[in-house]
Amino acid sequence: MKPLQKIEEVGKALVKQAASQKPLTLEVPVRSLSNVIYDKSTHMLKLGDKVSERNFFNIAHAKKFLQTLEVAAASKELLEANKHASLRDVFYMIKRTIPGTKTNIVDDQPESDSAIEDLELITGFSREQLHINANKMGSVSGHVIIEDQGDEINWAKMGSGGWSIPSNVEDIKFKKVNAKYVIYMEKAAVWERLHEDRFWDKQNCIIMSSQGQSTRGIRRLLQRLSFEHKLPIYVLADFDPWGFYIYSVLKYGSINLAHMSEEMTLRGARFLGIMSSDIEKYGLKKHLITFKDVDIKRIKQLQNYEWFKEHKRWQKEFKNMLKMKAKAEIQALSSRGISFITETYLPEKIKNKDWIE
Amino acid sequence: MKPLQKIEEVGKALVKQAASQKPLTLEVPVRSLSNVIYDKSTHMLKLGDKVSERNFFNIAHAKKFLQTLEVAAASKELLEANKHASLRDVFYMIKRTIPGTKTNIVDDQPESDSAIEDLELITGFSREQLHINANKMGSVSGHVIIEDQGDEINWAKMGSGGWSIPSNVEDIKFKKVNAKYVIYMEKAAVWERLHEDRFWDKQNCIIMSSQGQSTRGIRRLLQRLSFEHKLPIYVLADFDPWGFYIYSVLKYGSINLAHMSEEMTLRGARFLGIMSSDIEKYGLKKHLITFKDVDIKRIKQLQNYEWFKEHKRWQKEFKNMLKMKAKAEIQALSSRGISFITETYLPEKIKNKDWIE
Repeated sequence: MKPLQKIEEVGKALVKQAASQKPLTLEVPVRSLSNVIYDKSTHMLKLGDKVSERNFFNIAHAKKFLQTLEVAAASKELLEANKHASLRDVFYMIKRTIPGTKTNIVDDQPESDSAIEDLELITGFSREQLHINANKMGSVSGHVIIEDQGDEINWAKMGSGGWSIPSNVEDIKFKKVNAKYVIYMEKAAVWERLHEDRFWDKQNCIIMSSQGQSTRGIRRLLQRLSFEHKLPIYVLADFDPWGFYIYSVLKYGSINLAHMSEEMTLRGARFLGIMSSDIEKYGLKKHLITFKDVDIKRIKQLQNYEWFKEHKRWQKEFKNMLKMKAKAEIQALSSRGISFITETYLPEKIKNKDWIE
Repeated sequence: MKPLQKIEEVGKALVKQAASQKPLTLEVPVRSLSNVIYDKSTHMLKLGDKVSERNFFNIAHAKKFLQTLEVAAASKELLEANKHASLRDVFYMIKRTIPGTKTNIVDDQPESDSAIEDLELITGFSREQLHINANKMGSVSGHVIIEDQGDEINWAKMGSGGWSIPSNVEDIKFKKVNAKYVIYMEKAAVWERLHEDRFWDKQNCIIMSSQGQSTRGIRRLLQRLSFEHKLPIYVLADFDPWGFYIYSVLKYGSINLAHMSEEMTLRGARFLGIMSSDIEKYGLKKHLITFKDVDIKRIKQLQNYEWFKEHKRWQKEFKNMLKMKAKAEIQALSSRGISFITETYLPEKIKNKDWIE
């Protein structure tokens, strides 16, 4: 079933309820922390079985009920026009005062955002499939040819800039993928280093970066390359609690997107960032940055995440980091020479399988 | 003279001073606020004439003197290798302990950043020309063909993503520019709206966005299109003090980059964002966001900027905004329909010359 059909089905079911004078209800899986579980068999965070009923005639539910239908109507409008909107657009699309009252359908964007997440669960389609886009961010290069919006795009012929990754990558067609693996990094500056050195060409891989956190578009693009082309995904991040967490989210999913884990997580992702053993090996001791209290607190949280708890290799890493009470950045490798990362560090780590899985 | 020659010249002059047993000195224009002036004839912020002497044998100057030479050496290394580094890379490249002491050449990145800005002034070359790159961000589309790193890139054939703008656009060659103007917007989501509606194709223009603040790469790219191809630049920003300030920086320059104004500012930039008269005209009254104290404070600052002080049109805008005590976002236009911005708002504004210059 297509998204548009599904939305119509949801609407028709409600019309039927109304026609038979039954109370109007929607069933929505519970998205709170109490219903997020770590599934050991699939190694990902997912939603549990708890479902809540939303009743239009319950005064505590009525507004959320209405908001959910309003975003469904906005999504239907977008799907029919074959256009996409951002979360902010959808907020404005449904924002208005209910006639004869002083009540607004939505006052703040978190309300429409939350209704959109509910719509994902009710319909079983991601918000990208519902034509509601997340943020756009990031660049990619490699020996890959794609087709997108009727254009054929060669990721190996993008000059110094790379192809700009859109917020929605669902409709991209891979025409040719000639790569052994993908390296994803959070820092655009590190991407520019790898790109200038034509690392993707010399090592026959794909390099991808965001400019800050990984967007849904980037996560989906990584997942599609991993699933459809069986490419290993390496995550190149700092030796610090936040770098580890970036990896954690990519691999195991996150609490607030637990309902999207199957579309988002990278089961085989490998941490290729700096590890405690690299500090000595690559002479980074002088470039350690001393922990603040917040770093210690964060590492202790990571230690106790269910998916890390029984993971001996990660526990060792957390312990070593707590012993050092310090972190180190990828870019500290530049102290060894501007291309040390592309000529020595990365090829050596990959050859020696010196990563954490 | 090329950057590499200039750096060597600076070095040789110092060697000569040392050989003739003169005290080692560098002359550096003062970059503090006291030396930033608004030049009414060129309409841009620029540095005044104040120059400070940095003496190696003055204990208060010695460290800064050394830092300046160290970044010059790092830049020389990069230029010779024909490679580029980020500010963070350069920090790590020069970070080390001076032998026999416990003093580090740099402890924090702001120290090396500041030395790099001094080097720009001493050599007369931008840090991009010195092979030190700023952040990478943003996307672009339009009927433009460029050559970059041996690749021919057609900005009209980039699928849904666009071309990803590099941090350094100095070496890009424009092969074909078929556009009447450029629209720059800070929000990637707005860019995706314009791009999906193929606004650049229908209106024969270039659309460009950052994802957050405008980077130096974006500002230089806009300036090159404005200077080399005489294209008007429109800035599409929110009706709010921060949106106005984005325009202000693009057009008049900023205090901390006053020494780069000639390479950065867009003398003819036009504000095409929402204006007070648009609120009524386009039915956005319901989507006004009430001012906080900080917004009022910010507007009052803008009112007093020298370049706005005698600008009647802007003063009117500030006054109207203070009367409304409210701001409005570009995306509020989505309440009028998802493509209202591309089908009505922008074509109408441009046709009626309804912008602020």
